[in-house]
Amino acid sequence: MNEWINHAIGEPDQARYRDAEAHQLQLTKPAGSLGVMEELATRLSAMQGTVRPSLERLVIRIFAADHGVAVEEVSAFPQAVTVEMIRNFAAGGAAINVLARGLDADFAVVNMGTATAAPSGSNILQYAVAPGTSNFCLGPAMSSEQLQQALAAGADIAEQLAGAQLFIGGEMGIANSCSAAALACALLQAPADELVGSGTGVDKDGRTRKVDAVERALSRLGPAIDDPQVLMQQLGGFEIAALTGCYLRCAQLAIPSLIDGFICSVAALLAVRINPACRQWFFFAHQSAEAGHSRVLAAMDARPLLQLNMRLGEGSGAALAVPLLRSAVDLHNSMATFAGAGVSEAD
Amino acid sequence: MNEWINHAIGEPDQARYRDAEAHQLQLTKPAGSLGVMEELATRLSAMQGTVRPSLERLVIRIFAADHGVAVEEVSAFPQAVTVEMIRNFAAGGAAINVLARGLDADFAVVNMGTATAAPSGSNILQYAVAPGTSNFCLGPAMSSEQLQQALAAGADIAEQLAGAQLFIGGEMGIANSCSAAALACALLQAPADELVGSGTGVDKDGRTRKVDAVERALSRLGPAIDDPQVLMQQLGGFEIAALTGCYLRCAQLAIPSLIDGFICSVAALLAVRINPACRQWFFFAHQSAEAGHSRVLAAMDARPLLQLNMRLGEGSGAALAVPLLRSAVDLHNSMATFAGAGVSEAD
Repeated sequence: MNEWINHAIGEPDQARYRDAEAHQLQLTKPAGSLGVMEELATRLSAMQGTVRPSLERLVIRIFAADHGVAVEEVSAFPQAVTVEMIRNFAAGGAAINVLARGLDADFAVVNMGTATAAPSGSNILQYAVAPGTSNFCLGPAMSSEQLQQALAAGADIAEQLAGAQLFIGGEMGIANSCSAAALACALLQAPADELVGSGTGVDKDGRTRKVDAVERALSRLGPAIDDPQVLMQQLGGFEIAALTGCYLRCAQLAIPSLIDGFICSVAALLAVRINPACRQWFFFAHQSAEAGHSRVLAAMDARPLLQLNMRLGEGSGAALAVPLLRSAVDLHNSMATFAGAGVSEAD
Repeated sequence: MNEWINHAIGEPDQARYRDAEAHQLQLTKPAGSLGVMEELATRLSAMQGTVRPSLERLVIRIFAADHGVAVEEVSAFPQAVTVEMIRNFAAGGAAINVLARGLDADFAVVNMGTATAAPSGSNILQYAVAPGTSNFCLGPAMSSEQLQQALAAGADIAEQLAGAQLFIGGEMGIANSCSAAALACALLQAPADELVGSGTGVDKDGRTRKVDAVERALSRLGPAIDDPQVLMQQLGGFEIAALTGCYLRCAQLAIPSLIDGFICSVAALLAVRINPACRQWFFFAHQSAEAGHSRVLAAMDARPLLQLNMRLGEGSGAALAVPLLRSAVDLHNSMATFAGAGVSEAD
């Protein structure tokens, strides 16, 4: 099942990459002086197969789900907040809504399965797998069928993005930074205490419970398991698996993804472990305040665009990085050339 | 002369700062999870004296001038490029033009004095002091009268910004990173080799000449001089002094400034040395690739918003940071509150 996951991922167009680099050298600025902005424009040129890239059509999807491990009291917020925030996303009151409106982005929230009933609405896509995962301290977070269903949901979302020039995935789910930390520990072979953070802001005791929950799960699994799909099934969650599926399918469809914070980066790392070729379709938006994020980014050789000490999730850090990408495109397409402007080149 | 420079600088409104902080705690997100974005919004609230700040009216002024030290072959580009770039700014082809259009900013270039005649045009403000500074290796870059004229030009520009909610200063001038490095060395009592960078991209020999030029100027002055106005007169340039005057006068007029790269940061540090109270009206946009920038920023306890390995100047790094400030304002003003959205608060 999920035969699509093995489909090939194409390469961005290297000839267009070189053309775009050559174009950058003609613009009225010292060579290389726009730093990272030049790289963003040339990479987008290669991904879109054109020396005049465009970044108008932006799609944001927030994947939401509940986590059985919430019973271990690993979050500062009650589990009810997952559904309450789905309602807030649908009504347009969350941070990501404000940013999405400012970016003129296509926005929707994806219900991957919540403990209590989620609302319905025209901008809530219904893909619920189950009323949350099971507590991964005690056993697998989900069945292998549920994992395949969650991955396929993400792929299905990707297939609806026709025409999108950039995909942003976000996540929401009480206790999901605990699930992400457990996955990061297993993927990076790192101890819980190094990668578990304070998430939405648990206190010292809460973080101790969170480290303990991750340690119990890891000792239940043992160190030998490194198959990314087995790890997702064991440690959850539905929204993380859907993000992984969506990132992979976007790469297969040649749609660039802009990766948000810690939890999205863990989903991206799972995608890279499943098919390393997806990495070249990723941009990395920001390094969050969450303890394990820098390690997860380093595992993908990722240099994020922003470091603003944020730890909100829901795609907010990625949305904040979009103007940089759009400015990179504008500079690339609209600056005068040395010859056109009559400006002397370097001696 | 220049009596205005001693005018008092007011404090941002601390009561509104606390009101804005309290408002942030009501928004549907974990407390503090928007990181730096929260601080930007609360600082702007205090500066504007309102809990609902706004950041629509943005003014960008690029101060351009020539430098006598260019004869020491310290730049990768010929001196003619200063005037050529003024023409490019006026025609709308430079990087800052592209960014200014995207931000709907009020844009103009300020001619502070060039070696050959600068063009005229409706968006070129004529404040030429002289056809460039003198070579500071051999003597003072300018007379004290010229210094006062350049400072006053900056103040005059500031007084024309009525209604501006944010000021961005930029600079252009072949060899001006050499002048800025000399000023930074004198202000920070640091050796030339630590603060001289490659500017627009001089090669190894060019950088050696640049270090040598700064060392000759510093040894000509001796270590005892720390008066910022004396240092500006000795080491230049006209555009740096005008920026310093403009930053000071903006602070007196309660207009926030968003500081660009190395050269603008040296001008900002000069302003802080003249009147430390101006510091609280500054935002710092980015840390550039220029060698001495981090040291100059540290001297102002500045944590810049972006680090994109840029080294273009002309206000480009500051322009790229504007969407972050505007997003901070949007989030602050438009997110739902816990009570309004029916979202549970932290346990």
